Amino acid sequence: MQPAYPADVDVSLVAVESPVIGVVGAGQLARMMQQPAIALGVPLHLLAESADASAAQVIAHSQVGDYTDLDVLHAWARGVDVVTFDHEHVPTSHLEALTRDGVTCRPGPQALVHAQDKAVMRQRLAELDVPCPRNRIVDSPEAVAAFAADGDGWPVVLKTTRGGYDGKGVWVINSSDEAARVLTTAPEGIALVAEERVDFARELSAVAARAPSGQIAAYPVVESIQTGGVCAEVIAPAPYLAPELALEAQQIAMTLATELDVTGILAVELFETRDGRILVNELAMRPHNTGHWTIDGAVTSQFENHLRAVLDLPLGSPHARAPWTVMVNIFGGPAPTLYDGYPHVQARDPAVRVHLYGKDVKPGRKVGHVTAYGDVLEDVVERARHAAQWFEGTLSGAEATHA
Amino acid sequence: MQPAYPADVDVSLVAVESPVIGVVGAGQLARMMQQPAIALGVPLHLLAESADASAAQVIAHSQVGDYTDLDVLHAWARGVDVVTFDHEHVPTSHLEALTRDGVTCRPGPQALVHAQDKAVMRQRLAELDVPCPRNRIVDSPEAVAAFAADGDGWPVVLKTTRGGYDGKGVWVINSSDEAARVLTTAPEGIALVAEERVDFARELSAVAARAPSGQIAAYPVVESIQTGGVCAEVIAPAPYLAPELALEAQQIAMTLATELDVTGILAVELFETRDGRILVNELAMRPHNTGHWTIDGAVTSQFENHLRAVLDLPLGSPHARAPWTVMVNIFGGPAPTLYDGYPHVQARDPAVRVHLYGKDVKPGRKVGHVTAYGDVLEDVVERARHAAQWFEGTLSGAEATHA
Repeated sequence: MQPAYPADVDVSLVAVESPVIGVVGAGQLARMMQQPAIALGVPLHLLAESADASAAQVIAHSQVGDYTDLDVLHAWARGVDVVTFDHEHVPTSHLEALTRDGVTCRPGPQALVHAQDKAVMRQRLAELDVPCPRNRIVDSPEAVAAFAADGDGWPVVLKTTRGGYDGKGVWVINSSDEAARVLTTAPEGIALVAEERVDFARELSAVAARAPSGQIAAYPVVESIQTGGVCAEVIAPAPYLAPELALEAQQIAMTLATELDVTGILAVELFETRDGRILVNELAMRPHNTGHWTIDGAVTSQFENHLRAVLDLPLGSPHARAPWTVMVNIFGGPAPTLYDGYPHVQARDPAVRVHLYGKDVKPGRKVGHVTAYGDVLEDVVERARHAAQWFEGTLSGAEATHA
Repeated sequence: MQPAYPADVDVSLVAVESPVIGVVGAGQLARMMQQPAIALGVPLHLLAESADASAAQVIAHSQVGDYTDLDVLHAWARGVDVVTFDHEHVPTSHLEALTRDGVTCRPGPQALVHAQDKAVMRQRLAELDVPCPRNRIVDSPEAVAAFAADGDGWPVVLKTTRGGYDGKGVWVINSSDEAARVLTTAPEGIALVAEERVDFARELSAVAARAPSGQIAAYPVVESIQTGGVCAEVIAPAPYLAPELALEAQQIAMTLATELDVTGILAVELFETRDGRILVNELAMRPHNTGHWTIDGAVTSQFENHLRAVLDLPLGSPHARAPWTVMVNIFGGPAPTLYDGYPHVQARDPAVRVHLYGKDVKPGRKVGHVTAYGDVLEDVVERARHAAQWFEGTLSGAEATHA
């Protein structure tokens, strides 16, 4: 078993020659990339918004800098082999400039713009015949009213085409007057898109990783339960989803990953309508909240497959390891600290998996998530919810009596 | 679902109040502690032997310092809440001095000495009636010969009582002359212990975590395949192990963890004799090579349970997630770099799990490990071995043709 060393091979002091991945942004997504980076033996270099940001706490090579400053990006990128992202907020023009100067960005700006600009995204998806809610770029209250009149009337959903996330930059509009108010408060120079309000039964998410080689690993389609426009729970796989819809959702993710030339994780947020169709709601090109369950629930996590794709390595199996996996986000709540939640949560349920992001507790802020898995969905849901609510301090009386 | 915030609770800008764990030593064990530390939201502060050591590459708070210098240890420990270890080489007297000065060491020196000093260990195990190979402290060739004569004669195993690891400090002795040579080369002031050479069928390992509360999580007993005194492969659970022996091995680990007042991981390396007994070979009080399979193969890894124990938190489930999990170490071999092994290994087997330690490749050095799991033992063994040998560059022709 002990390896033999031919005398003519000099194996002394040969450095591990791993490429360095640069990550722009030091949120929890970059933080969770560090776990598979450690296993892969691949160094991460971080461009962080602050020295104590979530990912900066756990990555040795961390530099504080402003990603909106092209000079900062340029200087930082010189020390890495490939650049990827914790978020989609780096200006497209900066990414184009970096790419022109030979910096490898994965995903590249031509792909990423579809996750940055909803107008670009909607137009491209229409060209690809991917089912979307009815939509139109609008620039006046009259245009919004015309869009409503051309469909089923009010309400209509208005979205900023750039800069929105987690429910921010989205409004449900019931009249021209409301549309006028949104239009006056919207940032200068950013277009708005009007969309039909879809009568959906539930929200789904299809997450896939794509490597530059063209290989794709498509994760099981999950159900995403949103609260106030923010992902609160994810159930993997989506319970009782018709197999043909699950396949269609994965096919959409694979088509978009290929056609948009995505490298890394693509998350396609979908509506399942009450009449049995699926429509694309949003795209993200980075590890996504609806994929956090994969850390404990899949053979290869979305974070590892994102890194493997960014390195153009073969992707890992996206298969689930248990019949059901449920992820519940922890939001900042009445409990002043998260750490004090451990004794109860861990003693009550030795199999629950906890992920805290090293963030200060603020009302409604995503500060962590918990994952449970097992054979009985109701049991798994209860375990994950109980743990998350205990950390938040939001267990109701009835739930607390079952603690 | 969105939490409510009572007006009288000030939840703004409350810091996450997690204790800081100090880790002495920056090898791969400290490196692999960082992955669950990230999930737990617990900061690690490292006292590293060098700035580019395995764990120092992946831990933000890293200080280079000499752990044999008590002043260095003292100053460093002031910044942490509890101290734990990547290795067992910190002098017992230093740990006693730290403890006297109020530093919490987990495990503490009274426990750790049993993993540092084989004379102390053997004496205590005899008091506890734990089955061990026949043994005796020896200080002369004549004493070794007398020990041999009192048993089955030569060969006899000689071990340094301190400082040995991975087959170093262990000799198989066939005569008084050989004993004399070892005795003259042994470091001054370190006793030697003579042990019977056990006619074992195989080696087993019982790994358990113990918290200061007294809770114990005992992992399934595994088979450990050693080469030249170094762990090469681990099969979990140990195939076809008699249930009563598995239980006895776990019971020994639990008894020792309790009686020696261990905090954190205790690994008990065992011989299974051809006549159906188990004997304790070695103890380790830190995450152990025979527990690396738990990262991918158990609900809670040994590294996470080590940290949870050190924090006196409830322990996580030690249950296996698959019928069989096999870990194979990667040793430095003919392949000059490890990274170049990825394309073949990952494309051939999308489910294999790779862990590289960020170490330079040197002959025979442990530089990583791979883990496979599944339903069919032979298949799982083949997958893990193939991957490890590919990284090493040691696949034989016959094996390579099956690539």
